[in-house]
Amino acid sequence: MSHNTFGSLFRFTTWGESHGPALGCVIDGCPPLLPISEQEIQSYLDRRKPGQSKYTTQRREPDQVKILSGTMTDEEGVLRTTGTPISLMIENTDQRSKDYSEIKERYRPGHADYTYDAKYGIRDYRGGGRSSARETAARVAAGAVARLVVPDISIRAALVQMGPHKINRENWDWAEVDNNPFFCPDKEAATFYADYLDDLRKSGSSVGAVIEVVAEGVPVGLGAPVYGKLDQDIASAMMSINAVKGVEIGNGFEAAALTGEENADEMRIGSDGQPHFLSNHAGGVLGGISSGAPVIARFAVKPTSSILTPRKSVTRSGEEVDVMTKGRHDPCVGIRAVPVGEAMMACVLADHFLRHRGQVGGK
Amino acid sequence: MSHNTFGSLFRFTTWGESHGPALGCVIDGCPPLLPISEQEIQSYLDRRKPGQSKYTTQRREPDQVKILSGTMTDEEGVLRTTGTPISLMIENTDQRSKDYSEIKERYRPGHADYTYDAKYGIRDYRGGGRSSARETAARVAAGAVARLVVPDISIRAALVQMGPHKINRENWDWAEVDNNPFFCPDKEAATFYADYLDDLRKSGSSVGAVIEVVAEGVPVGLGAPVYGKLDQDIASAMMSINAVKGVEIGNGFEAAALTGEENADEMRIGSDGQPHFLSNHAGGVLGGISSGAPVIARFAVKPTSSILTPRKSVTRSGEEVDVMTKGRHDPCVGIRAVPVGEAMMACVLADHFLRHRGQVGGK
Amino acid sequence: MSHNTFGSLFRFTTWGESHGPALGCVIDGCPPLLPISEQEIQSYLDRRKPGQSKYTTQRREPDQVKILSGTMTDEEGVLRTTGTPISLMIENTDQRSKDYSEIKERYRPGHADYTYDAKYGIRDYRGGGRSSARETAARVAAGAVARLVVPDISIRAALVQMGPHKINRENWDWAEVDNNPFFCPDKEAATFYADYLDDLRKSGSSVGAVIEVVAEGVPVGLGAPVYGKLDQDIASAMMSINAVKGVEIGNGFEAAALTGEENADEMRIGSDGQPHFLSNHAGGVLGGISSGAPVIARFAVKPTSSILTPRKSVTRSGEEVDVMTKGRHDPCVGIRAVPVGEAMMACVLADHFLRHRGQVGGK
Amino acid sequence: MSHNTFGSLFRFTTWGESHGPALGCVIDGCPPLLPISEQEIQSYLDRRKPGQSKYTTQRREPDQVKILSGTMTDEEGVLRTTGTPISLMIENTDQRSKDYSEIKERYRPGHADYTYDAKYGIRDYRGGGRSSARETAARVAAGAVARLVVPDISIRAALVQMGPHKINRENWDWAEVDNNPFFCPDKEAATFYADYLDDLRKSGSSVGAVIEVVAEGVPVGLGAPVYGKLDQDIASAMMSINAVKGVEIGNGFEAAALTGEENADEMRIGSDGQPHFLSNHAGGVLGGISSGAPVIARFAVKPTSSILTPRKSVTRSGEEVDVMTKGRHDPCVGIRAVPVGEAMMACVLADHFLRHRGQVGGK
Repeated sequence: MSHNTFGSLFRFTTWGESHGPALGCVIDGCPPLLPISEQEIQSYLDRRKPGQSKYTTQRREPDQVKILSGTMTDEEGVLRTTGTPISLMIENTDQRSKDYSEIKERYRPGHADYTYDAKYGIRDYRGGGRSSARETAARVAAGAVARLVVPDISIRAALVQMGPHKINRENWDWAEVDNNPFFCPDKEAATFYADYLDDLRKSGSSVGAVIEVVAEGVPVGLGAPVYGKLDQDIASAMMSINAVKGVEIGNGFEAAALTGEENADEMRIGSDGQPHFLSNHAGGVLGGISSGAPVIARFAVKPTSSILTPRKSVTRSGEEVDVMTKGRHDPCVGIRAVPVGEAMMACVLADHFLRHRGQVGGK
Repeated sequence: MSHNTFGSLFRFTTWGESHGPALGCVIDGCPPLLPISEQEIQSYLDRRKPGQSKYTTQRREPDQVKILSGTMTDEEGVLRTTGTPISLMIENTDQRSKDYSEIKERYRPGHADYTYDAKYGIRDYRGGGRSSARETAARVAAGAVARLVVPDISIRAALVQMGPHKINRENWDWAEVDNNPFFCPDKEAATFYADYLDDLRKSGSSVGAVIEVVAEGVPVGLGAPVYGKLDQDIASAMMSINAVKGVEIGNGFEAAALTGEENADEMRIGSDGQPHFLSNHAGGVLGGISSGAPVIARFAVKPTSSILTPRKSVTRSGEEVDVMTKGRHDPCVGIRAVPVGEAMMACVLADHFLRHRGQVGGK
Repeated sequence: MSHNTFGSLFRFTTWGESHGPALGCVIDGCPPLLPISEQEIQSYLDRRKPGQSKYTTQRREPDQVKILSGTMTDEEGVLRTTGTPISLMIENTDQRSKDYSEIKERYRPGHADYTYDAKYGIRDYRGGGRSSARETAARVAAGAVARLVVPDISIRAALVQMGPHKINRENWDWAEVDNNPFFCPDKEAATFYADYLDDLRKSGSSVGAVIEVVAEGVPVGLGAPVYGKLDQDIASAMMSINAVKGVEIGNGFEAAALTGEENADEMRIGSDGQPHFLSNHAGGVLGGISSGAPVIARFAVKPTSSILTPRKSVTRSGEEVDVMTKGRHDPCVGIRAVPVGEAMMACVLADHFLRHRGQVGGK
Repeated sequence: MSHNTFGSLFRFTTWGESHGPALGCVIDGCPPLLPISEQEIQSYLDRRKPGQSKYTTQRREPDQVKILSGTMTDEEGVLRTTGTPISLMIENTDQRSKDYSEIKERYRPGHADYTYDAKYGIRDYRGGGRSSARETAARVAAGAVARLVVPDISIRAALVQMGPHKINRENWDWAEVDNNPFFCPDKEAATFYADYLDDLRKSGSSVGAVIEVVAEGVPVGLGAPVYGKLDQDIASAMMSINAVKGVEIGNGFEAAALTGEENADEMRIGSDGQPHFLSNHAGGVLGGISSGAPVIARFAVKPTSSILTPRKSVTRSGEEVDVMTKGRHDPCVGIRAVPVGEAMMACVLADHFLRHRGQVGGK
């Protein structure tokens, strides 16, 4: 059962609406004795924070995280987890007072307005309420804690496609990712995206993106076949992110077009005496279990639904109207999904690390 | 927590290995009073059954299902569910006695041999053991019961791409799906696939495929944001199927290349006085909740890993070897994934139907 | 899996330590459109609040609850649940600055000091940290919300034994429960307890108690055999309360001493044409399913472990010491367990109400 | 969420009705490489098996267990668990063909007939269907596997009270438990019970019992506060057993009558340099976490509801009738609950052992 909880042994529950007093998460199952700090969690939140470039929403939120429980300062003065629930809270500050009567009655196409109303009979329409991407701040906070559980795993993500424009993978340089406002590992592509997105933004349009998440140093053996497969849980994690419409592992959809010979990852014994793979079409997962190769996932983010062009819609009371969405929006929500994808990957890996240790006794 | 259980209010647990005495599932949470029969469950199993054409494995399994619990004949002589666990069993019959010593020691590339061994330190190597696609028979049986829970929803799937060859969607005809051994809705494509796959089969090669699952008649409101989203659970369900490497909803990865204008689904009031959508780029899900439009998912199946061309591999004891996989295999495992995809969709929808009814009180 | 979460369809997660900045809970799965107010939740918290008589801890906490998410004011100005997570927070205010070095090193007998340290290797020793009964404030808040889900069920609890002294059940008067500081339904017993407990308090001793919880108006059919039985979940709920050592349903342990004839609840058709029971030895549950008779549970609370008499103990570093627990403590923690028992019963019933509606479609 | 599943990391799902073709369980999460045999599981089933003395039901069931999955013979010829689901099946053989029309229409007082009908609208009335104590055979089988997970823990149970007659605890001798048909550790009491129960049986009456379960060698640290407490899960486990009406840990209900001084378990450093307890009023659990002292639980079983004396009842169609239950019944169902209590304790401990290892990394 899961409504607002993700994970099993390492799991978090998020709460909060876009325009409520605060949002946050409760992380349960985090092992004790891990060094933790608000600063470290904050550093991940800062990467996702809105208002950092003209390419993301101009809403100005400090997104300052507070740790409310689950930690204790030890005798050396180091703040550590205690094994009890870690409650993290982020107060909302930039909730512009405005007239919401329009959005209250009109369903914005592509948004969850209609479905929330149809399901619940009531919704918090201010800024999208619970369906707002602000919820992902809580995910990023949870992900920062998850990284503490698997410190030997490197988890990074990058934007690899904006609109129809893919990066040139030969230019891939992780160091570039933090050098441009798109989390793009291809310097040339980033330069192109700057102009491309600026034009879209000015015209009130929007565009989709593809994000790639790479986890290196994942030990062999994580994943619980057949309904707790590692790739299954990654798919679940990524598809739960706002606006995501597709997820793939390793070769993903391209694997469908290949022959068995082309898609095979051959094996040899490495210099360390251990089996290793000569390629990684599988994206680090075989039979739902990590193989020791990097775990690679990609997910597709649809274009921001809020655009200036009027679109046909209806009201709560059944009138036909045209809706044009004004307000502070990201022309490409995929950009800020990069740290969110990292966070979700971290949570899945932390969870499976603990589950594996529980069931099999692995380190 | 899930190892071998899928779902929450409607959920099933599968068990069994490829070459054990039997396999099966226990379905828990199925509502009472639904008419049920072994014949109806069998009809779905027969669609997935091996050995029905030269394009699937020549293993001959009757896959005869038995209902062991959870039903009762009522006063009209109709067998009905009672609300207690439904245990379904399928005995394995065609377990050829053969020498497994080779596969026992050698890791077949692309298979789960290495990862199961690395995780558990032991594995049932006979026919792939638990990682064999035979497990999907239990899913199909569970899916047949799930359909009873949502009788007003039509759930169908089709193969829409084999290798690099996509069908022509303008030829789509559901009636064709059962007219060819590929579950292909495009008659022309099916003719092409027949030759194409025959050549691959003869050369001992294999190829991937893409399957599309369509659920029509899904009521508005199914799905529990934000970590029990309908599309999230569909992604989890499909990615849990053997050999699946990607899942997408509606426009999926193509949505990344579109603008907000192109991807929008506009709304109008229909002749029934209800809101409806003028297009379905979203694939029937908005904000994780069903919108009333058809729910559309696609998943990519990698090429069968068992091929005749020798590939480099290693043994349990660390020797380098070349492995050529003989045996009874499907050159395109994607074909038999069609009824499995339908079954998983049925299970997700049945589960969310019950969850929605529980939380919100919907019909 | 549950660490700090209770329930399935209606479920809550609590967080917070005795001396942290705050504590709270996140309630997930609450149906939408229920009228809710901080005042109403507060009224239940006020019943449990410390410092209200000389018989409970002199710690002064206003226990003021704030709703942080999950609600929306409707057009009539009524605050209503929206079906999204309800986050409730209570700030800690009376955290006396004091020297904790003694309790930090010494294990208080009967407390969880030793076991938390042994399990986690670290613990928040200030006021008992997470193991403090302050956590039950979050339960009471959750219970207040649970009552909204089952408004037709009356849920009340009372203290029926203090130390060896049982009440006279013939004196039972629900109206008396709020007339004395013991939640005692027997006026005479309450008078006796006043002196009895005052003596214990002055001598620095403590005593146990038995609490009875009665739910009237429970519809027939709640409970999911065989591992989600209503009485099973009540037992789990009550045993999870701090210091509880026993739980029983209906006749409970006395049933062991009876014959089948004595313990039988005979049935007849009532004036409403429905089956009803002529007695209620079963406590309203048969086969794990509610029978329509009042659901009756009792639980035993051990004497407060914090006493002034020195007891033998050890330190973290393995020294043998004598420990005398000073501080602000309840001589009978069972008293304040009364509203906690009610709250847990409300949560179990709300959860099973939703589960039953989900699986069986009951109203 | 749990309908027919118990546990989280180590968990089992049971299925089957009293008079169906078979019953069984699927055990999920059992670690790999544990030596296992049908013979060993059978030895526990044989202790619970009906028809072994005149004091238990005369139904003759061999209760022969079959392992259908999850095991593999290793190179030394030892059958071992593989980490995949273990499916166990017990075929029903002694299903007397008889006329069930009476029980079909009449609700037997004290049974679950009425509540199952009211909940589900249909029930398998043959022998009680799913509510029959035959389901506990599956628990015993699961418990036998659970013991493999915690081989260093000794788990034993005994009958300590029959009707109003308690054993003399000074006579306690574990060796006696298997010397009498009552699992009674007090030889004198067993002699008394023989006559006492024979008289009850002949008169068609029945009586309740209290069972005590003792687990020795439980490591410190098992249990996940605050909603996965060890004692909470034990309470849940025991209360889920048919006919159980009360559960207590350590001093249990007697603790309510004690002062803090009387109930305290003092601590000293043992000869092994480790903290240990000078008494065990707590029953081995503090703050929901095992303390290293023996874990002690007791549960009360109500008298068998099936008695020869006619009792007032009603029919499905609303007629008032008198019901006298003929058939093959145990005059004291508490007797056969002894191995069931052991099994449930084993399952709880195995689950918490794995959970602790997962979250905290303990051995």
